[in-house]
Amino acid sequence: MPQESPVRVVIVGGGFGGLEAAKGLAGADVSVTMIDRRNHHVFQPLLYEVATAGLSPGDIAFPIRSILRRQSNARVLLGDVTAVDVEQRRVQTSGSGPIDFDYLVLATGASHSYFGHDEWEQHAPGLKTIEDATEIRRRILLRFEEAERSHDPDERRRLLTFVVIGGGPTGVELAGAIAGIATRTMAQDFRVIDPSSAKVILLEGTDRILGTYSRRLSAKAERQLERLHVDVRVSTMVTGVDDSGVDTSAGRLDSSCVLWAAGVDASPLGGGLGTDRDRSGRVLVEPDLSIGRDRNIFVIGDLAHVRQGDDVVPGVAPAAVQQGRFAAGAIRDDLAGRPRGSFTYKDKGSLAQVGRSSAIARLGRFEFSGFIAWMLWWSIHIAYLIGFRSRVVVLIGWGWSWLTYQRAARLITKPWTPGRRPNADA
Amino acid sequence: MPQESPVRVVIVGGGFGGLEAAKGLAGADVSVTMIDRRNHHVFQPLLYEVATAGLSPGDIAFPIRSILRRQSNARVLLGDVTAVDVEQRRVQTSGSGPIDFDYLVLATGASHSYFGHDEWEQHAPGLKTIEDATEIRRRILLRFEEAERSHDPDERRRLLTFVVIGGGPTGVELAGAIAGIATRTMAQDFRVIDPSSAKVILLEGTDRILGTYSRRLSAKAERQLERLHVDVRVSTMVTGVDDSGVDTSAGRLDSSCVLWAAGVDASPLGGGLGTDRDRSGRVLVEPDLSIGRDRNIFVIGDLAHVRQGDDVVPGVAPAAVQQGRFAAGAIRDDLAGRPRGSFTYKDKGSLAQVGRSSAIARLGRFEFSGFIAWMLWWSIHIAYLIGFRSRVVVLIGWGWSWLTYQRAARLITKPWTPGRRPNADA
Repeated sequence: MPQESPVRVVIVGGGFGGLEAAKGLAGADVSVTMIDRRNHHVFQPLLYEVATAGLSPGDIAFPIRSILRRQSNARVLLGDVTAVDVEQRRVQTSGSGPIDFDYLVLATGASHSYFGHDEWEQHAPGLKTIEDATEIRRRILLRFEEAERSHDPDERRRLLTFVVIGGGPTGVELAGAIAGIATRTMAQDFRVIDPSSAKVILLEGTDRILGTYSRRLSAKAERQLERLHVDVRVSTMVTGVDDSGVDTSAGRLDSSCVLWAAGVDASPLGGGLGTDRDRSGRVLVEPDLSIGRDRNIFVIGDLAHVRQGDDVVPGVAPAAVQQGRFAAGAIRDDLAGRPRGSFTYKDKGSLAQVGRSSAIARLGRFEFSGFIAWMLWWSIHIAYLIGFRSRVVVLIGWGWSWLTYQRAARLITKPWTPGRRPNADA
Repeated sequence: MPQESPVRVVIVGGGFGGLEAAKGLAGADVSVTMIDRRNHHVFQPLLYEVATAGLSPGDIAFPIRSILRRQSNARVLLGDVTAVDVEQRRVQTSGSGPIDFDYLVLATGASHSYFGHDEWEQHAPGLKTIEDATEIRRRILLRFEEAERSHDPDERRRLLTFVVIGGGPTGVELAGAIAGIATRTMAQDFRVIDPSSAKVILLEGTDRILGTYSRRLSAKAERQLERLHVDVRVSTMVTGVDDSGVDTSAGRLDSSCVLWAAGVDASPLGGGLGTDRDRSGRVLVEPDLSIGRDRNIFVIGDLAHVRQGDDVVPGVAPAAVQQGRFAAGAIRDDLAGRPRGSFTYKDKGSLAQVGRSSAIARLGRFEFSGFIAWMLWWSIHIAYLIGFRSRVVVLIGWGWSWLTYQRAARLITKPWTPGRRPNADA
């Protein structure tokens, strides 16, 4: 057991922001407690690869405990933080009781917003966790199996229609990957159905996909998707989701596999801080990422609403990383008696994959698309996986899948229930 | 769609036996329908590696559909065969209705027998499927997490006591791997508990572990396990299992993680054939692996009771493979008007891993143990994975884990339920 420092820093959430905050405190005279309700950090940008059977969960998820094993001033607790008591500087946990803090870094992120229609979730799961990803994988693969054994042409058509709601990066990645599975991976595997007859429809409420990019790149991405036979429908609002399809402002779509990649709903823990929040529930923070009520409480990552001039810092991994690093630095400043600075987001650019071998990229003032952007996308993601053990495995697995059009992890798995028949339901 | 042959061969079960039967009919003038309730073939001998976080499910499971993709006379159906109608030569399926056959190869294997105490299953899961493996992995990893946050020394002791019931190969492999996780993989990851203080107890009802090997090899394996601090208790009968431990003929063992690796219960489909069965429910077959009532119905693999002189052919992968190949050959003999032969099992030997870097092996009359046997074990398993895509990935992943004592897939995952809190229960 390491020597306990009297300054107790509690970090809630082991995503990009929380992990970076913990690492930023290595060697500092504090005792860090990292609490997460999962034992693993997920490399979110590649989660859609798990959902589409390209990678295994273990390729992109790493035990938080082993990431922080060498940092002797940090301990890791598996548990759910149920409330933050700002007055008492204490978090309530399920499993470990109350935990007092001198500093709190809240980095619990966001989940999907169904815009007040939580009943849609069961019909249109979103993609935030490893469990979400394996569930989506199960649904996609199962629809092809069900179509193969169906004798009803209408049912078969519905089973082979995939609807992705939301034209942001996740929606585009999912739609592109499903199209790739249908036209390439599965092409020779079935005897009755022709998997390449599957329809993939991408719905977006605004007038273009990938709205955070320039109009030029949005248009390129749309053309790339259309080349993959993804049916992109912009300016289309979803008005209902049920077990057999989607109602939209442009009519009904029959589908047995609807996926949700729209809307952000910040973690409910942000609601207990007594601060202002934006429409998505994100906490409005001060320039040093603390909350006005208590400057020792920081909110970072997707849970934070950080203003920068007229813009809001986007909810992306690099922003969370920079904020985690800043919060750790601010705590160090306090300990050293230095004044804290103000957080500034350095936007190094952004990338989105569009199907098997193209992407769009913005790096500073430069814009790329197509294969060159995809090479960039690929190198940067591999580079970011450095430090995690999977880099080589991921690299080889991908190389293989890419060359053969195969997908490594085409498993339909099910929740485990004693004695339950594995395919008792769909 | 391939041209349909009038001779319809239905194979139920995509394990080692069923898959080999299907492959053995490649190019024959038959139409093969392979039915399995999962979409993937599992490389069973390495399933314990998934259960102990060493490999990911995708490393050892492969879509049956892609294994058979190039065999144009074979189609694959995902579905559950609920009954065999011997008179009508027809199987009932859930999902695809009734399917008629001219030949049937029944290869649905076996699950665990709890010796009439099915209520033990929830407290002591067995290891047959990928879902079993991820559930066992979740339990093992979760116990360390719970111990880390527990303040009660008795509870902590119970949480860090792992009991494996059954001293066959699976039990020995599980016990050895858990001991390795506790003493090596986890060693530096916790701040409160010392993972190497975990106790691993292996219970065996007979007077020695690995009873199918010679007494000399059993004794060696026992010594190897004891060197890993596994507490091997032979001649100990289990009389009860509940949520806090195990009752045995030698007293009570408190444990929060009990795993079941004892007893074989043949698939219930064997009961509907109107044949004699042995105590484990295995179907007594003729020398050509068919059933007396209908020579066009073959039963192979773990579901078959095959006599060879005074011995019964063991329920191991190589036997299933040989039987699958034989059944395909017998069907080809019929088509060619040749008489069928009798099945003969060629026992090439057997191997069992015992912990990180030792094993025991019997090859013909030769016996090996220790590191040399482990090298053999390892080479043979890698060689068998040939043809599946994972060989290189598995090789590299293992090499890495072996050198660093790390485990690649230390994920605690949960069944997906919309809106459910991931750690609402243990």
